[in-house]
Amino acid sequence: MARIVMKFGGTSVANLERIRNVARRVKREVDVGNQVAVVVSAMSGVTNQLVAWCTELSPLHDAREYDAVVATGEQVTTGLLAIALQELGVDARSWQGWQIPLRTDNAHGKARIQAIEGGELIRRMETGQVAVVAGFQGIGPDNRITTLGRGGSDTSAVALAAGLQAERCDIYTDVDGVYTTDPRIVPKARKLARIAYEEMLELASVGAKVLQTRSVELAMNERVRVRVLSSFKDELAGETEGTLVVDEDEIVEKENVSGIAYSRDEAKITVRRVPDRPGIAASIFGALNDQNVNVDMIVQNISADGTTDMTFTVGKADLPRARAALADVKPQIGYAELLEDPDVAKISVVGVGMRSHAGVANTMFRALADKAINIQVISTSEIKVSVLIGAEYTELAVRALHTAYGLDAS
Amino acid sequence: MARIVMKFGGTSVANLERIRNVARRVKREVDVGNQVAVVVSAMSGVTNQLVAWCTELSPLHDAREYDAVVATGEQVTTGLLAIALQELGVDARSWQGWQIPLRTDNAHGKARIQAIEGGELIRRMETGQVAVVAGFQGIGPDNRITTLGRGGSDTSAVALAAGLQAERCDIYTDVDGVYTTDPRIVPKARKLARIAYEEMLELASVGAKVLQTRSVELAMNERVRVRVLSSFKDELAGETEGTLVVDEDEIVEKENVSGIAYSRDEAKITVRRVPDRPGIAASIFGALNDQNVNVDMIVQNISADGTTDMTFTVGKADLPRARAALADVKPQIGYAELLEDPDVAKISVVGVGMRSHAGVANTMFRALADKAINIQVISTSEIKVSVLIGAEYTELAVRALHTAYGLDAS
Repeated sequence: MARIVMKFGGTSVANLERIRNVARRVKREVDVGNQVAVVVSAMSGVTNQLVAWCTELSPLHDAREYDAVVATGEQVTTGLLAIALQELGVDARSWQGWQIPLRTDNAHGKARIQAIEGGELIRRMETGQVAVVAGFQGIGPDNRITTLGRGGSDTSAVALAAGLQAERCDIYTDVDGVYTTDPRIVPKARKLARIAYEEMLELASVGAKVLQTRSVELAMNERVRVRVLSSFKDELAGETEGTLVVDEDEIVEKENVSGIAYSRDEAKITVRRVPDRPGIAASIFGALNDQNVNVDMIVQNISADGTTDMTFTVGKADLPRARAALADVKPQIGYAELLEDPDVAKISVVGVGMRSHAGVANTMFRALADKAINIQVISTSEIKVSVLIGAEYTELAVRALHTAYGLDAS
Repeated sequence: MARIVMKFGGTSVANLERIRNVARRVKREVDVGNQVAVVVSAMSGVTNQLVAWCTELSPLHDAREYDAVVATGEQVTTGLLAIALQELGVDARSWQGWQIPLRTDNAHGKARIQAIEGGELIRRMETGQVAVVAGFQGIGPDNRITTLGRGGSDTSAVALAAGLQAERCDIYTDVDGVYTTDPRIVPKARKLARIAYEEMLELASVGAKVLQTRSVELAMNERVRVRVLSSFKDELAGETEGTLVVDEDEIVEKENVSGIAYSRDEAKITVRRVPDRPGIAASIFGALNDQNVNVDMIVQNISADGTTDMTFTVGKADLPRARAALADVKPQIGYAELLEDPDVAKISVVGVGMRSHAGVANTMFRALADKAINIQVISTSEIKVSVLIGAEYTELAVRALHTAYGLDAS
């Protein structure tokens, strides 16, 4: 018997039949004696329609009105799921953000949760009533509906789990857990039983987009145990299903490397023969920042004859803006040449265990060398080693690394 | 310069283009210096879809969850209209029932308005901001969303006009006013410039369904001046457009008869040779009431040889239930025979002027006799005379009466 939060995304509640499935899934948790709060998204497609209406009426629409419109998607799902639960004989009621209340700041359209006053909700859960909570929304200091931004329902669920001091937060998705790498590339990829918050963040930000990054950060800060599992499997969510995202202290057998991630969404830019003097990096990245270009990997080598080469990656979609921004500042910086290469892939090995194990990076370099894959850029962090390689080697590199770190399923 | 409430129904906000039209219409009122609150319904079709979902999940669904689901339709329209107004440069914001707050009782699905705490809304209207208010909904004593029942947006608008002490409440519909009779039957039907609340109630309840009956009752009680006008005409709503529904004191030139209404929705039942003793009427109509059969006209003639005939009308859809209910009580009442006739029409002449003018009923009887139309049942009230005739004579009777009372347009 525990207090748990369950979260179902848009595809899991896409129609009445799936809402009934969700209700049955919730009922099983109730039947084993758990106190349950369910966070739901809008039925898939609904939010897009509502957003399109706002945008068509006015490209620069009032974010407060946008919030009033799009928050209705989740509201509909809460009422329908409550009805479906009652039809199964489960006591349930819907809760909108303003009814809980789930308080946010005033940043309409991308609000941040500030406080959850869950007293009444907890009292009702303690009587056995299931709380069906609208994800993605809260109430701002102006007494108006706020939304947390797209994908915000994961964050709602984690925040609610923290507010309710729930034992865990079960996030139902269209995958059945977090894998050591993309199973479409490596059929022998293994589902991880547990993964540390930090690892999940690194894996999410490099492409394994199972959970919204912000929800993982919040879970890490609030120490909420998050379980990722499939809404299309039909068993009871025991401790053995899906992947549990937890503090690394909860992971007894730490692997050196937990997973291999890849991203082909980045392009490489090299600024050749930049004068090697203080403030040059600030000039380059300041110009990019002014154009809202996000920079990921940055490498600067030692200088020769008073100049240096600066290499970094940006999102492929940002490439034209990055090029224009750097052309603008060429006179004041005085670099020789701009090289760009969109045909690159970033491969990362991630694992909290590498903190205490030497040789992780070297294993990577050797494995890639064995396949004659040239490394263009290297970047490391405490729990991650990333390299940039030619995009055509992506699958080959991921498979080689998966084997090299002993991650293949037996 | 005045404070007014404007109300637009589902067909008037059916798509973005119509919402833009509504915004332009509202802007014209703002431009002439009026303080404006706009009450909107859900985009047409939306409410039906939401209701269908609730019903499909559970035929006997929780009315509180039903309210949470269906109230979203109006919420979407408020946000979209506010955006459309802002796009035209008009300051506007949306208000849900719980934000005003518009307080109702706890009768979810058919709640009644109890109080409108419009202080904040009025303060903002006084700064020139248009209040876009979700119709059909409020907040109950349990802090949950309530709905007023189908068609309740008219009632919302009138209640808001009363709460804001508005000069008038403009109800935009798909007709351009209230006519002396159905123009499809009488091409010479005239649009009435003014009509008394009581007349509007009688005309509405006998078929001229322009305004929801409850909204007219509320307007009468709260002395709210209601204007019915077309949302598809594009002029400014001056005092000369549409039909103004007002206290009869505001109507200087009272006609004896303001309009001719008809209904083919009723069926006639005669209980033959009922023992003429006290309590018999109570037995018959008690049995019908127990089966939720609404009875309209009732006629009982004097008795002969200790029995009498009791004739009344019920809604055609209620005929089978009425028949069954009366068959059940036949042994205890002991009537001779049950006659039923679904092929009848009820024709009514309505006018507050008839209070002070004799001969109104007689004009009716003579006009019908001239066309050889047989009158089956007669029923009168202070401002109405109704007769039941064969359904096939409906158009003939309406046209004859329209001419007889001098209502034809010249």
